[in-house]
Amino acid sequence: MSKEISAAILGASGYTGAEAVRLLARHPKVHVGPLTANAQAGRALGELFPHLHTYSDRPLVKAEDVDWADVDVAFGCLPHGASQETLLALPSHVRIIDLSADFRFRDVTTYEAVYDRKHIAPQKTADAVYGLTEFARDALKGAPLIACPGCYPTATLLALLPLAQAGLIIADDIIVDAKSGVSGAGRSLKEANLFCEAAEGLHAYSVGNHRHAPEIEQELAFAFGVAVTLNFTPHLVPMVRGELVTCHVKLAQGTSVDDAREALRTRYADEPFVSVAAPGASPDTRWVRGSNLCVISIFADRIPGRAIIVAVIDNITKGSSGQAVQNLNVAMGWDEALGLQLEPLFP
Amino acid sequence: MSKEISAAILGASGYTGAEAVRLLARHPKVHVGPLTANAQAGRALGELFPHLHTYSDRPLVKAEDVDWADVDVAFGCLPHGASQETLLALPSHVRIIDLSADFRFRDVTTYEAVYDRKHIAPQKTADAVYGLTEFARDALKGAPLIACPGCYPTATLLALLPLAQAGLIIADDIIVDAKSGVSGAGRSLKEANLFCEAAEGLHAYSVGNHRHAPEIEQELAFAFGVAVTLNFTPHLVPMVRGELVTCHVKLAQGTSVDDAREALRTRYADEPFVSVAAPGASPDTRWVRGSNLCVISIFADRIPGRAIIVAVIDNITKGSSGQAVQNLNVAMGWDEALGLQLEPLFP
Amino acid sequence: MSKEISAAILGASGYTGAEAVRLLARHPKVHVGPLTANAQAGRALGELFPHLHTYSDRPLVKAEDVDWADVDVAFGCLPHGASQETLLALPSHVRIIDLSADFRFRDVTTYEAVYDRKHIAPQKTADAVYGLTEFARDALKGAPLIACPGCYPTATLLALLPLAQAGLIIADDIIVDAKSGVSGAGRSLKEANLFCEAAEGLHAYSVGNHRHAPEIEQELAFAFGVAVTLNFTPHLVPMVRGELVTCHVKLAQGTSVDDAREALRTRYADEPFVSVAAPGASPDTRWVRGSNLCVISIFADRIPGRAIIVAVIDNITKGSSGQAVQNLNVAMGWDEALGLQLEPLFP
Amino acid sequence: MSKEISAAILGASGYTGAEAVRLLARHPKVHVGPLTANAQAGRALGELFPHLHTYSDRPLVKAEDVDWADVDVAFGCLPHGASQETLLALPSHVRIIDLSADFRFRDVTTYEAVYDRKHIAPQKTADAVYGLTEFARDALKGAPLIACPGCYPTATLLALLPLAQAGLIIADDIIVDAKSGVSGAGRSLKEANLFCEAAEGLHAYSVGNHRHAPEIEQELAFAFGVAVTLNFTPHLVPMVRGELVTCHVKLAQGTSVDDAREALRTRYADEPFVSVAAPGASPDTRWVRGSNLCVISIFADRIPGRAIIVAVIDNITKGSSGQAVQNLNVAMGWDEALGLQLEPLFP
Repeated sequence: MSKEISAAILGASGYTGAEAVRLLARHPKVHVGPLTANAQAGRALGELFPHLHTYSDRPLVKAEDVDWADVDVAFGCLPHGASQETLLALPSHVRIIDLSADFRFRDVTTYEAVYDRKHIAPQKTADAVYGLTEFARDALKGAPLIACPGCYPTATLLALLPLAQAGLIIADDIIVDAKSGVSGAGRSLKEANLFCEAAEGLHAYSVGNHRHAPEIEQELAFAFGVAVTLNFTPHLVPMVRGELVTCHVKLAQGTSVDDAREALRTRYADEPFVSVAAPGASPDTRWVRGSNLCVISIFADRIPGRAIIVAVIDNITKGSSGQAVQNLNVAMGWDEALGLQLEPLFP
Repeated sequence: MSKEISAAILGASGYTGAEAVRLLARHPKVHVGPLTANAQAGRALGELFPHLHTYSDRPLVKAEDVDWADVDVAFGCLPHGASQETLLALPSHVRIIDLSADFRFRDVTTYEAVYDRKHIAPQKTADAVYGLTEFARDALKGAPLIACPGCYPTATLLALLPLAQAGLIIADDIIVDAKSGVSGAGRSLKEANLFCEAAEGLHAYSVGNHRHAPEIEQELAFAFGVAVTLNFTPHLVPMVRGELVTCHVKLAQGTSVDDAREALRTRYADEPFVSVAAPGASPDTRWVRGSNLCVISIFADRIPGRAIIVAVIDNITKGSSGQAVQNLNVAMGWDEALGLQLEPLFP
Repeated sequence: MSKEISAAILGASGYTGAEAVRLLARHPKVHVGPLTANAQAGRALGELFPHLHTYSDRPLVKAEDVDWADVDVAFGCLPHGASQETLLALPSHVRIIDLSADFRFRDVTTYEAVYDRKHIAPQKTADAVYGLTEFARDALKGAPLIACPGCYPTATLLALLPLAQAGLIIADDIIVDAKSGVSGAGRSLKEANLFCEAAEGLHAYSVGNHRHAPEIEQELAFAFGVAVTLNFTPHLVPMVRGELVTCHVKLAQGTSVDDAREALRTRYADEPFVSVAAPGASPDTRWVRGSNLCVISIFADRIPGRAIIVAVIDNITKGSSGQAVQNLNVAMGWDEALGLQLEPLFP
Repeated sequence: MSKEISAAILGASGYTGAEAVRLLARHPKVHVGPLTANAQAGRALGELFPHLHTYSDRPLVKAEDVDWADVDVAFGCLPHGASQETLLALPSHVRIIDLSADFRFRDVTTYEAVYDRKHIAPQKTADAVYGLTEFARDALKGAPLIACPGCYPTATLLALLPLAQAGLIIADDIIVDAKSGVSGAGRSLKEANLFCEAAEGLHAYSVGNHRHAPEIEQELAFAFGVAVTLNFTPHLVPMVRGELVTCHVKLAQGTSVDDAREALRTRYADEPFVSVAAPGASPDTRWVRGSNLCVISIFADRIPGRAIIVAVIDNITKGSSGQAVQNLNVAMGWDEALGLQLEPLFP
């Protein structure tokens, strides 16, 4: 093995696990190591995901059967709750990049209220870095535990944080009307995820109580310096990948849409994965499918003093496993784009 | 012909024209008369729309070649502008049910500004009834010219008008985040409407300047008694039929979400086509596909004092040709549901 | 209740049960009676199928709790096996229209081999009429037990039976390459039926061993007068409804494609639901969606002496519940189209 | 420019042109040079294809305005006919990799009959190599003009050529029932390609007269050593990318399905992009989406002595631009997988 480090994927039978394998398969410095999936242990990866042809013969193993001595980093692609339990058992030399919600909240009591369960590893939370890469690079370097943001928070925060930090929007009455493809629900067998139930239709879900709302509020509160309560209304769209958030906000007194756009442009000028569209251009999730990109656009509202900010990402890539790889690259001090230099797939 | 009246369809080569034929084919009192389509004149309906098997042999004719003596009513399924021109030429005994935007504005100068063209039949506008059926029955009876609302205004106004009229929501900062299937764009050959451009993706369009915004504002202003400027942000969703509007509003001082739901329930208790979902239920466009139904639901926002109102319709049925047939039924004094008693198609 | 008879739906929580309710809701002579669904008993129909608004408050009940005294006919919308068990328990005055495979085989041993289970009601099989309506009218009149054909057999047999009976095609090397929408798999929770697994892709399934092959062979053998073994290769297509069979056959010596088309036209000239497309026209499942129609077309092959016959149906309507209603109409001696006079839904 | 050679893309405004840019953007030895598109000259690539972010500022130019001095290779992504005209005008030092049909036929008169037009560059045809990479490597090395196969011929020939060459199948009655996503039709504005016309339905097209049939016949005739006439029946499937061919064939006397599978396995054992699935596994186009892979499977037919061979490719990648890049790699003597080492995108 000529690669620099070896990565385990915990929960390789789900979509985010498979996406991590897809991306790491082409990463020049990371060897794809053990793949775990407790219920599917013993089956080959290619049986579950025939598209992952490079590793089709790799067996899935139980997490408890992994020899961690040769593993440098673990991507946690498990559901919340299961993630804590599994990660607690890892030896301390293993860097953890967790995609679950378990370590995203700076205050464990908030986590426990939102996810309605006791947190069993509160001490780890204190060390966790909230890995919205573009806003966390210093903290990410060398971090032992990185909590990757949820998909909706990723898109929403990339759209709003620069404006909140600069005082160009106000903290009141922020309305985030969000839309996601069905892959955000994972590979679990729920009636609502069946083709015949999800195709050719649309509905809002978790209206007023989606768990990503408190996560967004936590981060916006840091940026604004005041507590934030927002409207977050997600919708399930009949497509596989892709997420679009439409943020309806009030501009600060004296701020124009052009001011805000300029602030976004300046903030993201040197970013490899975030860009601001030309005035009037309306980003489509097709612009970023299969890539780690985020594209943002800002529009004037008909209502004076308000603006509409749209951001698109691929929920499985920048919204999950792509950002996880990006965080690994930063944590290791590597070129941030390693393994992620992919043009989106269109049509 | 044993039916009571004969209806012409002007513009039978488009989706709303075809939908009118689909519905009238089963209407017990309306004979499907001349079908016009200038560019396609001479072809049979079945060549353009093989699903319309009952009338597959019917030829399309030029509007100028129709003998209007035997025609009682004309459904105008033409684009705006073309609609005015064609309808102006009809003899006065023909009742007009127009689906275009040409006669929706009570003030011709607003129309001319929004649609960026001179109105050539301003005198007819004065007589036109804005045909949001549930709010226009008295005026519709015997009306010679009915201007059917746009699809987005139909869903939005059904969601908001009762609350605006009752003073339960306020006129400021109304945000309508709307989503539509691709059929709303009609059968015209535009790149954005190609399967490969519209499938598996999502984007906002006409942000801040969609022509349905002034139409909604006009009607809300009547209800509120003050001028209204709203945020209207439509999105194109990869599905054929269906429209969902998510209305983010402020409740009036002292009004609860339960109050508002109760007001909606009371208002629509006797309506054959509009219903209010149970608390917590989130309407899906699949609940109404192919039918004339509208389902509305109201949710509490995380932000105190605000509410989220969702409404779903089939944009081609209740949003276009279905409401047109409903308006005809009212205008004629018939049972309002004639020809429209269809269960939605699911899955 | 002013309707003539009352119908129970056994298995109203599945797609074919829901389709039966959709169609019977508008049937002038049939009252929708008890709706059974053992696992969902106690819930209202509208919770499972919000589109069925006319009966949204109807409770689902256990089959064992039905009072059969007032029920005249039962539509069996249960899986095979479960169907036998449930139907055996019905009193003899209840006419049975079964959509499962349980009574389709004239030889119980074939059924037992194909479905790999013991048949518990072999005596009933002897009385069952194979309900491909267009070829079974005499037998259907007054029949106590009607076994509706599978969806694939329906389309395939409508395409081939007239030619087989007339000796215009030969029994050797019949290749039926079939394609179905995902609803054919029902509402069951299987990974392959998830939106993300079924969208944007295509594969063949049950190649060489699909259970509809022996059923087609049974009926073709009657028509040809010799045993038939055919190639039946189904594919799962990313759409909800619709089924298309492409039958690659050898014409009998001296028979032309025009001869065969003429034979089909003559055979179906007076049929309300089966039609033959114009030469060169290629039927699309969109031509029949939501309706009880079947459209057939025949093409010359590049290989001399061969022909390609394409047939399209909606798998849930003509392929399941629509044909079941049609069979009821015939059994009762009513107009065969009652409750089925629907234009397809397009777009 | 540190890359070894520079490539022009002729016809960069279409899907195959865009796919060539997508792949070459990550090719370590090829610089993306001039991009031509006559009707769109002057616009930036990013306006037409916002997903191609790496080259979003690149202007499209007219082919006649290209300075060919710095260009080493031209990818011809133009329609047939236009391709001949444009390629004829190129200086002789430019290697041509043509994706159109213009140089695929070894006999110009066949081309002229099939495409119903005069060939204006018959002399070039003599030098053209038919670039089904896996069967043309020797001829491809250094070839000045490579005619890439059509998408359907690519999948069909990969499935059948090894068996034809080895005498394991016979040349009679070969039936290729093919299915393609809508992107095969390109980005042109045709009603059949609209979302509302292509979604949620399926039909066969060009039955008996598709232009890829003679191309497949040409190559099979070489393999079999006798002239071949086959049944080729393509269907349009509601998905963007992906192509699946179901080949119904007769095995040679004494050949079993296992023999044939073993022959395919042996033939493709060392191929980087072609693989044979395990017995019983049924390849899905999702297994190869966005990649240059082809997966083949063979099944026993119910009819003794027959077999069913299924092959899947991505029509735009292995079926078009991916194979073109693969051919360039071979022609240059490079590692054949350069620029093509991509895992498929799933879900």
